[in-house]
Amino acid sequence: MTIQDTLNDPLLDNGFKGFPRVQTPMRRSEVAKAGWNVLAGDLPLPLAVLKREAVEHNLAWMQARVRGWGIDLAPHGKTTMSPQLFRRQLDAGAWGITFATVTQLAVGVAAGARRTLIANQVVSDQDFAGIQMLMQEHADLRVVFLVDSLAQLDLIEAWSARHPDSVPFEVMIEIGVDNARTGVRTHAQAIQLAERIRAGKAARLVGIETYEGQGATGDSGHDTGYTNTLMDRVDAVARHCVSNGLFETDEVLVTAGGSAIYDLVALRLKPTLGMPVRGLLRSGCYVTHDHGTYQRFQKPLDARLGCAPGESLRPAMEIWATVQSCPEPNLAIIAMGKRDISFDLSMPTPIARAARGVLVPSDVPASWEITALNDQHGYLRWSDADAALAPVVGERIAFGISHPCTTFDKWHWMPVVENDYRVSDAVLMHF
Amino acid sequence: MTIQDTLNDPLLDNGFKGFPRVQTPMRRSEVAKAGWNVLAGDLPLPLAVLKREAVEHNLAWMQARVRGWGIDLAPHGKTTMSPQLFRRQLDAGAWGITFATVTQLAVGVAAGARRTLIANQVVSDQDFAGIQMLMQEHADLRVVFLVDSLAQLDLIEAWSARHPDSVPFEVMIEIGVDNARTGVRTHAQAIQLAERIRAGKAARLVGIETYEGQGATGDSGHDTGYTNTLMDRVDAVARHCVSNGLFETDEVLVTAGGSAIYDLVALRLKPTLGMPVRGLLRSGCYVTHDHGTYQRFQKPLDARLGCAPGESLRPAMEIWATVQSCPEPNLAIIAMGKRDISFDLSMPTPIARAARGVLVPSDVPASWEITALNDQHGYLRWSDADAALAPVVGERIAFGISHPCTTFDKWHWMPVVENDYRVSDAVLMHF
Repeated sequence: MTIQDTLNDPLLDNGFKGFPRVQTPMRRSEVAKAGWNVLAGDLPLPLAVLKREAVEHNLAWMQARVRGWGIDLAPHGKTTMSPQLFRRQLDAGAWGITFATVTQLAVGVAAGARRTLIANQVVSDQDFAGIQMLMQEHADLRVVFLVDSLAQLDLIEAWSARHPDSVPFEVMIEIGVDNARTGVRTHAQAIQLAERIRAGKAARLVGIETYEGQGATGDSGHDTGYTNTLMDRVDAVARHCVSNGLFETDEVLVTAGGSAIYDLVALRLKPTLGMPVRGLLRSGCYVTHDHGTYQRFQKPLDARLGCAPGESLRPAMEIWATVQSCPEPNLAIIAMGKRDISFDLSMPTPIARAARGVLVPSDVPASWEITALNDQHGYLRWSDADAALAPVVGERIAFGISHPCTTFDKWHWMPVVENDYRVSDAVLMHF
Repeated sequence: MTIQDTLNDPLLDNGFKGFPRVQTPMRRSEVAKAGWNVLAGDLPLPLAVLKREAVEHNLAWMQARVRGWGIDLAPHGKTTMSPQLFRRQLDAGAWGITFATVTQLAVGVAAGARRTLIANQVVSDQDFAGIQMLMQEHADLRVVFLVDSLAQLDLIEAWSARHPDSVPFEVMIEIGVDNARTGVRTHAQAIQLAERIRAGKAARLVGIETYEGQGATGDSGHDTGYTNTLMDRVDAVARHCVSNGLFETDEVLVTAGGSAIYDLVALRLKPTLGMPVRGLLRSGCYVTHDHGTYQRFQKPLDARLGCAPGESLRPAMEIWATVQSCPEPNLAIIAMGKRDISFDLSMPTPIARAARGVLVPSDVPASWEITALNDQHGYLRWSDADAALAPVVGERIAFGISHPCTTFDKWHWMPVVENDYRVSDAVLMHF
């Protein structure tokens, strides 16, 4: 389907992994009526499912938090690339949506996003043209992207000079960190760039951006110091730009935020600049959270916020898969692999089991772990102490993920399930 | 689109990453007429491209090799999941296509595959039903899957007992290796399983299967010994099954073959059993080969076969991406990440560069390397000696892959290009 079809009740069909094979194509709005239950075996495994209550809890919790901090949410859409989830984030109160590429932006605009950030440097003619095309198609669309070099600005200006009818691009300067990713490394570079933007006509400086995620360790002492040092640099550049009239906007955007230590940057996104400021947090993984990397980061974060267990983000995604072979005493091979679940930050976590025909999952022994994944297989191992609880061929096992971004991109759709695994809705992904 | 639409000249549209944004939906057969050139900037980057000549060379070379070995090819379709590439493999002379799951099988059948292997244990009711449904829809369809346990056979028999009109399943016993993946670990287990299959009505034993890839090291001495020991076990089980009338077929299938040491197993796929044997090699990655893991394995393989450089498999896939930032003296950030290229076996390899506006790529310095990938970013570094040749913002760089399987699954389509990067065709993927 074209991206224009993504918002209006898209069709699902058996070309989608995990969709029932005997089912004729069906609108998303019809999925709940089908009466499917994942544990009743109504859908082929492996299957990624989203737990409705946890997703709704996460949407509401993060939005309330951000409101409490006096800032806004522009969640990173690259995590899910799901028009249905973008819609829910906007309906929950998100100011806008962030994207990594112009291709992602186009999906988000089709899904209804009108205030958008591209948290990346845009440098190619195809992408400049793509942004201008989207703005022409949608008069109410705002697109703000990052700049971090004079070389990039030269490309922007050259393109604009060749397209005199184009609208000036809205840009933010990215403040980077040595040995990390993009962004200017020094205050002087930032100021030089801001002055060059101000002197030209191709772009308007509307904010300052940074990304703190690569410095996060999970140690609150370190992470607090690191974040404050970084945000001090953001402040200093923003203040200089205000003092010297380098912003061309009525409201300065100040934005940061991965999904690991977002509370620490949140407190610094509304600096006193002597002009209106909109603080934008860009966390993307909060929608589903996870059972791995982000759960580990959430523990110190909960401690900083004083959240009781379960009060803050809850893992909302599970991958159900089948035991296909138990070839050795302490080894089961699961019909689930690198094509089905993230493996880039850490391995999947076994979280529940359901024998064939059993509709209520039970806990798994603590020693169960996935030790490796092939393209289509997972290796589940356990300690001798849990031999009596060993999995059996045909049994279903649920796995928690570590890293939502690299699990969403392995699926075209995911059913949304109630706590009893009845399918009540579906979302589509567009990677 | 449904899987039934995949074969007949499918539509491409701007919902596909890498498809031109201003382009209205277009049939695959119309792509060549569009006159696009990747290096002219006609398609947004990052973009995965297939080089036509290299793909055609690989298809022909592997087919000729297999013919020379007196065996047949049933290439693993999970590598590409591309109906257009399945078609070319069959047209080149492949006996059939191998799949990892019933969902993949359905895509392959829609693409015209009629002799199929599932190189996995099938254990779920959804999958038993899916195979039977496909066989009902296509009278000429043959599906053979793997069994490796009595527990699995119990599931097959229980399903068949509940579906008395079903056709007996064709199965192969998988011979496994200790500490590796699926498959029976002992001769006795294989024989017990074969006898139980023979005694029942739900399944017919038609062959013996193994997978040698997990033991491959790239050292010819080790790999030859390892392969022969494994294939001796396959032979012994096959001979026993012939002697004891445990096969229920006129022609025994003997199959093995990943993409690392396929020449070593190939020599052992036609054992003398006293009845007709069809040896089936299942290598999947040969279609595109790569610049990483499989290129490393190909060197000792070329030495064993006496192939001159370039005579055997050639890398046919490149990912083109843009330099978005050069924030430090020895660091460039590439707009290409885990969403675009494989990273599971080793990092991408920089292989060519083309400045903006340049249509002919040139070589890259030997010290260039990708040291890390984020979801949407790559980190390119180089030695001080190559400082004068540093990349610049906006420049395009081509990367070779390491592992075709985990690159194909990141794309919905790939343009097929001539050596001058004119787009002459396209393939679609269905993961």
